[in-house]
Amino acid sequence: MQNLATSSSWGYTGLFERTNGGGFLTDYYPKAQKAVWDLEGIYARSRHVPGVRFPGIIHTGQIGVAPSADLLAKWNQREKALYDTNPNRVPPLVALPNPDEAVLATLKGADFDRVAREASRTVPARENNGNTDIKNMTRGSTLYMPVFVKGANLSVGDLHFSQGDGEISFCGAIEMAGYVDFHVDLIKDGMNKYGLTSPMIKTSPLEPRFTQYLAFEGISVDDSGKQFYMDATMAYKRACMNAIEYLRKFGYSGEQGCVILGTAPVEGRISGIVDFPNACCTVFVPTEMFEFDIRPTAAGPTPVIRGDELARTS
Amino acid sequence: MQNLATSSSWGYTGLFERTNGGGFLTDYYPKAQKAVWDLEGIYARSRHVPGVRFPGIIHTGQIGVAPSADLLAKWNQREKALYDTNPNRVPPLVALPNPDEAVLATLKGADFDRVAREASRTVPARENNGNTDIKNMTRGSTLYMPVFVKGANLSVGDLHFSQGDGEISFCGAIEMAGYVDFHVDLIKDGMNKYGLTSPMIKTSPLEPRFTQYLAFEGISVDDSGKQFYMDATMAYKRACMNAIEYLRKFGYSGEQGCVILGTAPVEGRISGIVDFPNACCTVFVPTEMFEFDIRPTAAGPTPVIRGDELARTS
Amino acid sequence: MQNLATSSSWGYTGLFERTNGGGFLTDYYPKAQKAVWDLEGIYARSRHVPGVRFPGIIHTGQIGVAPSADLLAKWNQREKALYDTNPNRVPPLVALPNPDEAVLATLKGADFDRVAREASRTVPARENNGNTDIKNMTRGSTLYMPVFVKGANLSVGDLHFSQGDGEISFCGAIEMAGYVDFHVDLIKDGMNKYGLTSPMIKTSPLEPRFTQYLAFEGISVDDSGKQFYMDATMAYKRACMNAIEYLRKFGYSGEQGCVILGTAPVEGRISGIVDFPNACCTVFVPTEMFEFDIRPTAAGPTPVIRGDELARTS
Amino acid sequence: MQNLATSSSWGYTGLFERTNGGGFLTDYYPKAQKAVWDLEGIYARSRHVPGVRFPGIIHTGQIGVAPSADLLAKWNQREKALYDTNPNRVPPLVALPNPDEAVLATLKGADFDRVAREASRTVPARENNGNTDIKNMTRGSTLYMPVFVKGANLSVGDLHFSQGDGEISFCGAIEMAGYVDFHVDLIKDGMNKYGLTSPMIKTSPLEPRFTQYLAFEGISVDDSGKQFYMDATMAYKRACMNAIEYLRKFGYSGEQGCVILGTAPVEGRISGIVDFPNACCTVFVPTEMFEFDIRPTAAGPTPVIRGDELARTS
Repeated sequence: MQNLATSSSWGYTGLFERTNGGGFLTDYYPKAQKAVWDLEGIYARSRHVPGVRFPGIIHTGQIGVAPSADLLAKWNQREKALYDTNPNRVPPLVALPNPDEAVLATLKGADFDRVAREASRTVPARENNGNTDIKNMTRGSTLYMPVFVKGANLSVGDLHFSQGDGEISFCGAIEMAGYVDFHVDLIKDGMNKYGLTSPMIKTSPLEPRFTQYLAFEGISVDDSGKQFYMDATMAYKRACMNAIEYLRKFGYSGEQGCVILGTAPVEGRISGIVDFPNACCTVFVPTEMFEFDIRPTAAGPTPVIRGDELARTS
Repeated sequence: MQNLATSSSWGYTGLFERTNGGGFLTDYYPKAQKAVWDLEGIYARSRHVPGVRFPGIIHTGQIGVAPSADLLAKWNQREKALYDTNPNRVPPLVALPNPDEAVLATLKGADFDRVAREASRTVPARENNGNTDIKNMTRGSTLYMPVFVKGANLSVGDLHFSQGDGEISFCGAIEMAGYVDFHVDLIKDGMNKYGLTSPMIKTSPLEPRFTQYLAFEGISVDDSGKQFYMDATMAYKRACMNAIEYLRKFGYSGEQGCVILGTAPVEGRISGIVDFPNACCTVFVPTEMFEFDIRPTAAGPTPVIRGDELARTS
Repeated sequence: MQNLATSSSWGYTGLFERTNGGGFLTDYYPKAQKAVWDLEGIYARSRHVPGVRFPGIIHTGQIGVAPSADLLAKWNQREKALYDTNPNRVPPLVALPNPDEAVLATLKGADFDRVAREASRTVPARENNGNTDIKNMTRGSTLYMPVFVKGANLSVGDLHFSQGDGEISFCGAIEMAGYVDFHVDLIKDGMNKYGLTSPMIKTSPLEPRFTQYLAFEGISVDDSGKQFYMDATMAYKRACMNAIEYLRKFGYSGEQGCVILGTAPVEGRISGIVDFPNACCTVFVPTEMFEFDIRPTAAGPTPVIRGDELARTS
Repeated sequence: MQNLATSSSWGYTGLFERTNGGGFLTDYYPKAQKAVWDLEGIYARSRHVPGVRFPGIIHTGQIGVAPSADLLAKWNQREKALYDTNPNRVPPLVALPNPDEAVLATLKGADFDRVAREASRTVPARENNGNTDIKNMTRGSTLYMPVFVKGANLSVGDLHFSQGDGEISFCGAIEMAGYVDFHVDLIKDGMNKYGLTSPMIKTSPLEPRFTQYLAFEGISVDDSGKQFYMDATMAYKRACMNAIEYLRKFGYSGEQGCVILGTAPVEGRISGIVDFPNACCTVFVPTEMFEFDIRPTAAGPTPVIRGDELARTS
């Protein structure tokens, strides 16, 4: 990627309502809310989440190529099969093709109808890369992707000023207006040559560096005490909730904690995935991004944040 | 942690046989094997995995405190419930208490029998920290743990010269003889003060630094094409298998790839956990640790490793 | 600093002719030459210096405030005193005010003449910061400067895409067209409050990171064998010449080596300044910026660069 | 270097009396003093310099090989020539061979007398590496040195738990008891093959990392206002004095500031060495090593250190 920059001095983060897609922690924070961010050079700060100021890893949430007809059929088949296991779930297990709201450029008539019925939604990452939301897809990195159709039909978007690993709320990065400038090379038959079935990134030497993190642990036991088998998703959820509870002791609301983990350059790690039955995941929160000392002391935390700054938009 | 060092000039890594516990990738690599490592200062290299030499993040795989009787009962209850859902699974879902092989220091008679029946196995990480296998628990870090019983009954072990996030094969770190020296402080009522229900680590400023990684993606679709819902465990498995396939193109065997991901300072990230139905996980492999250029080129890879160096021990 | 970017896709580096100001190594490379750089996102490469590609630390070479009349008089006095010790030196010891070529905006007549006579040249860094050419004055950093006159008269310029510590050839950074955007705050009486007589920088968390450097040593003995007392300038010159000789073994010309040290993110360190009579300086060259393996091996270096690519412009 | 560790839990730092060798800042701090350090794992702290705690870059101050007879003669000749320019200087310009206090192992009689007359002192770094006091000569680094005599006569010592660039007071690192373990390889004719006339270091990936530094500037004008030509030694002295004055505003004594710069992992940079007549040097001080917030604010500094903790030993 040759360049990537914001074209405005602000961005925003959303927590989606549970009935509108929810998010990773929607069981705990089901209400829609939003935070507005002031973008000051490499740093972001928000009136809605006071006490933090951090350098963003500016990145593209979405870069993808078009699937072949076969691959598209495979996506629709496998996702429909999952959907059918619980079609009434809220939020849904899968966002199926949505003919009623499809936007299909110049297509009309029977072509429109046919494509609208089978056009996969761009919500998830897939073999075509797509909406991976990998925060390290930043300036100076290189993405290796397959080509499925003649011309590749490369598309890019969903620019993020910053995001934590996981993008734990649905619109959980700092979404921004901006532009991106990159160069495309072709490695003939590259996916076969390198045995790849999914995209790969060569990272950039230019990411923010930090001295210290607080790493919160989580294991695959849910909050009712039920044991799951090697469930990294559950373990990461517990790690995030542990981090949020910690932040709450400094005055943040749970929703503010959720926004911090979604937007700041936190790292979500699968630390242990072998010691059955517990996966052990960790979320690494840089201590230097707080404007007060967030580290534990014998005296205990002093609440310094009011906690009601996050605008309610529901 | 004040100090942690190896007391020998070698270590080892094991892939467990599927019938002996297996590992994260046991479906692909079910046979027992081992690699021996030469430890040269901060670096490790192995005759069984040629072509790599990396600085280890030396760490304790296991630090834990004793559970209270109530907490122990809770562990046994929840793990037995999981076990009972598929008691004949190989490898098992849970390692239940094993009275026949319990080693209980000085206990005898009825006390031995009672304790042997209820003594949780130390395989997994739990609320007491235990066998978390977090590679960042290194020299200069601080661990915040709960205390459940008078005196805490702190124990430490499972010293690792190096490990990748996940420790993807069962004995997958570089296991070593060594010693550890640390200092203990008490924050009275600290878990309540800080809202913690799981341990937390304050990381060290002294971890190896790298310029560049290859980050392999994985999504929650298994290799038969079945779609899972936001399954980070599956996504990380796919990311690891993608990395291993890539390594195989340079001549490594799959088992060698498995050992590299288990031992080298790779990072396992939960990059996207909101774009349903696909979790997107990534494994970040430092390019500098290879003694040849592992990065993709238009010409494609040249196999430089023979691939049969890993000793068979089955 | 809020933002700083290039507005073109190229930049350049110059070695000045000895009779036109010369440079740090003008005794060795007295001829004028220039290199043109292609700026590709965060990276620079040059057809005139093949084999290197590096991420720049984009920065302002020059930010300064106006001196008071008293301070200006002090500058002129002290610099003239030095100049007079060897007024015929080539290059000169000092660039004195130059009434014949002064460019003074709207000033005319007697005012022009008076100011032209006493207007200090902006070549060196001084108490007002000015042309410090500190490569770490990059995006995300903060500069603390004094104010000498009402309104401060802040000026900025000399934008560099990249530069090595020292900027060892006169126009030795990658000079670029661009823009800079920053925010100004005032700390009332700040220089007194903090005891500062020179500016200070709070650095940015966003600088390129490297795994490994080759650090070349130099001591304060010149190349004729004459011993100097704790002369860090001489020691750094020896360190740079050692680095250049090393690069020459890979085929680079001395002038190309000079351009590499001037432009790439090398670090110039005063490593030892107490062990009389030898200062020990080092220049740290990142190994990863070379497109071939620059590290020493038992086999010795293989020349991979032709060495005549640098355009002659004299 | 394979390993390097302290064998005790304490170390010390000395400021030498002006009449006993002095140090880089002996004009300002001429009195002998010492600080004792507690070594806690990777961190150092001192009762004599409260408010700082930092991870050390453990290193060898001294590694060297024996000179040939010719090289030794050259050293004695060039150093004597410098000495003779001001033989009465205090501290002296050069430490000449000192027959009265020579310690020469098993030598006796005429051999002792001959060698004692010509044995160079091991104070400075020279072509044989020797007492370079380069803080980056740490675990995981590699040193490339010449061989001048059969068998090389390698010697190592002067172990430092930590040191700032320059080691600005004479015994200015944290001196420690310890051991070092390394491996030696030979590159036949290596110095010629690589064009080296001085040693070179390949750095380690394992050095402490920091997010942020305060970088203090200095130019080559002394504190009486006299202008020097491109004098990096003077510029670094001014940068250090600026840093010390800043530290004094938080309550530290000047001597404590001197000890902090000498011992903590500060970086001494030759930032600009081309903009005549002013060299611009900088000293980079990590902000995270202070136990209070050392960064400037509008309110100004609050003294938090008493300033009289450093033991007087004169």
